[in-house]
Amino acid sequence: MKKLRLYTPGPVMIPAEVQLEIAQPIDHHRTAEYRRMHEELHGLLQYLFQTKATCLTFTGSGSAAAEAAIVGCCPPGHKALVYRNGKFAERWVQVCEKFNIDHTAVDLEWGTGVKAHDVAERLTADPKLDTVIVVHSETSTTALSDMQAIAKVTRERDALLLVDGITAVGALPVKMDEWGVDVYITGSQKALMLPPGLGFAAVNDRAWQRIDSGKMPVLYNDIKAYRKSLDTWDAPYTPANTLVRGAVLNLRGIKERGLENIWAETALMARATRAAAKALGLKTFAKDQADSATAMVVPDGVDEGKLRKTMYGEFGMRWAGGQGHLKGKIIRISHMGYIDAFDTLAGIAGLEIALEKQNYDFELGAGLTAAQKVFAEGM
Amino acid sequence: MKKLRLYTPGPVMIPAEVQLEIAQPIDHHRTAEYRRMHEELHGLLQYLFQTKATCLTFTGSGSAAAEAAIVGCCPPGHKALVYRNGKFAERWVQVCEKFNIDHTAVDLEWGTGVKAHDVAERLTADPKLDTVIVVHSETSTTALSDMQAIAKVTRERDALLLVDGITAVGALPVKMDEWGVDVYITGSQKALMLPPGLGFAAVNDRAWQRIDSGKMPVLYNDIKAYRKSLDTWDAPYTPANTLVRGAVLNLRGIKERGLENIWAETALMARATRAAAKALGLKTFAKDQADSATAMVVPDGVDEGKLRKTMYGEFGMRWAGGQGHLKGKIIRISHMGYIDAFDTLAGIAGLEIALEKQNYDFELGAGLTAAQKVFAEGM
Repeated sequence: MKKLRLYTPGPVMIPAEVQLEIAQPIDHHRTAEYRRMHEELHGLLQYLFQTKATCLTFTGSGSAAAEAAIVGCCPPGHKALVYRNGKFAERWVQVCEKFNIDHTAVDLEWGTGVKAHDVAERLTADPKLDTVIVVHSETSTTALSDMQAIAKVTRERDALLLVDGITAVGALPVKMDEWGVDVYITGSQKALMLPPGLGFAAVNDRAWQRIDSGKMPVLYNDIKAYRKSLDTWDAPYTPANTLVRGAVLNLRGIKERGLENIWAETALMARATRAAAKALGLKTFAKDQADSATAMVVPDGVDEGKLRKTMYGEFGMRWAGGQGHLKGKIIRISHMGYIDAFDTLAGIAGLEIALEKQNYDFELGAGLTAAQKVFAEGM
Repeated sequence: MKKLRLYTPGPVMIPAEVQLEIAQPIDHHRTAEYRRMHEELHGLLQYLFQTKATCLTFTGSGSAAAEAAIVGCCPPGHKALVYRNGKFAERWVQVCEKFNIDHTAVDLEWGTGVKAHDVAERLTADPKLDTVIVVHSETSTTALSDMQAIAKVTRERDALLLVDGITAVGALPVKMDEWGVDVYITGSQKALMLPPGLGFAAVNDRAWQRIDSGKMPVLYNDIKAYRKSLDTWDAPYTPANTLVRGAVLNLRGIKERGLENIWAETALMARATRAAAKALGLKTFAKDQADSATAMVVPDGVDEGKLRKTMYGEFGMRWAGGQGHLKGKIIRISHMGYIDAFDTLAGIAGLEIALEKQNYDFELGAGLTAAQKVFAEGM
């Protein structure tokens, strides 16, 4: 038997009851039933983002929501500070380039997070900068940025703060209104435990004021069209309504479990995994470590391709590799979504056996035991 | 008991085996397994569009694919002729407006199709026009345009032809290469019998030549990025891979049944429905009638809202109403996708009983009998 276990930091595994909810006979979306569902989704998203802001649901990946928000918040006359510390941060710089948005791109070492003091200094040095774009948890490197601290300095300087929370929202503490973040983005295939195909954006009044001052140069990802459709709990174009149905079910479950509990469980899995890595003599990659996923550096003498091939081909375990220049150098395991302590232990067990097959020098079971101790204390 | 029967011209009903295929445990998309699936999908799409052209799969609705194609094919220096004969045609004019594309919008009476001679005359009158955008089957009015004839005149005049085939491809005869259409668009929730969430574009070499002459001013719907990702059967952004999985299964089934047979079955349902309407004394709305859906004019003395409320609320039958200025004036029934003669008869039966409840004057069973005769002859 070879059971499929998905450890990739998105898509993550999906509860069977959600898959079956999505598989229910499809209904039309220009209906009272869809509108009721959309209204409920909106309230649940406000809980998820911890906000009173408008929450939009895009038919597309998280990148669709991010493009809509960035383009909307950066009309001519405004200038964005964009940090590039990984594969997804890079994409938001590309949005600025494509749409001729005036911007400064700051390259950070991959694996590090954005620092609040650096944001403060750059905003002070260039008074034209009035918009900051940061990735909360960079999926490609598992690096964390301290959004609470960054929000404090951007709010003090009256800059608009847009946060890619795709691998953060629903996994890591996110308190949009309390912190003062103006736009938060997420996608369906991470902590929301859904198939890919929906992007979400929470947009507060400060952001809308900026958005309303300009014209949207796109149709499909026109954030104003999405807001307008909320008047009737509708969608501007045909929505992926089976996924919306799944989202409502999952978010109800998330609210029932309580975000604080989910954040704590996610952090516990991350701590256990880091303890396992240490016991196996593996370095974690990120200097500023996010709890939504862990990246481990593949040690000398171990072949990353072979390692993941053994785990998937022989054990059915799908870990992620590295992206960009990290290809072949790191492996990544997720702590988001429909995954628990015992799945995590199974993943570590698979890693140990795969390492042993490459004659990597370590004590078999050491990773498992180290993780087990963390779980025993935390559960 | 109240069974849900979806007669809307998209989303249409979905085979249970496809819903369950989509509900299988999710896998990651940056994998050999996804690439194999994507490669198979590409071949199946070429069959669907009857083309050797490149077939792209967008994560979004059909509008995402249409935006990508229109923006790509209309860089500065080119001018588009766009016909506006319904709600969706209207949207392509909006794409031109949003992206500052030089264009002439031609308003046609809703319910009529675009005429080849009109295209020819306009292309001759304004030599700057080098791109034509037409909706093959306008969902909002069920009007048909003769794409074969239009393709002939655009090809003779060396203009690029972009066709919104969202309610045509897989339902009506579409022969992209034989006719000489340069770009054909479709979506997942119509004849492909899938949930909404995927858009498709078939793009030939003439179109790519045009696209390559310009720069894409968008990131998410960047048609060049989608083409590039085909080199490795990948996707530029996280794809809706559960829907891709369903698309492969459905398109295999479509190929097995044979497009010609599907076109004939669709046409038969349309003929039977028109015969039923006539027998009930109901006028069909479109002057140039497409076979993918039928719109009937709601007769005097009958309340459209009440009519559809009876059909849905009492019988579980979801017919579509009118859009824009046709709201309250027409009702629409689909002949696309997972629907057959007996579903169609059930729909007509529901309509008859709902009409009777409003004391509309007709002979009960007349619609059913008329449709039944057409089916008996054609089956």
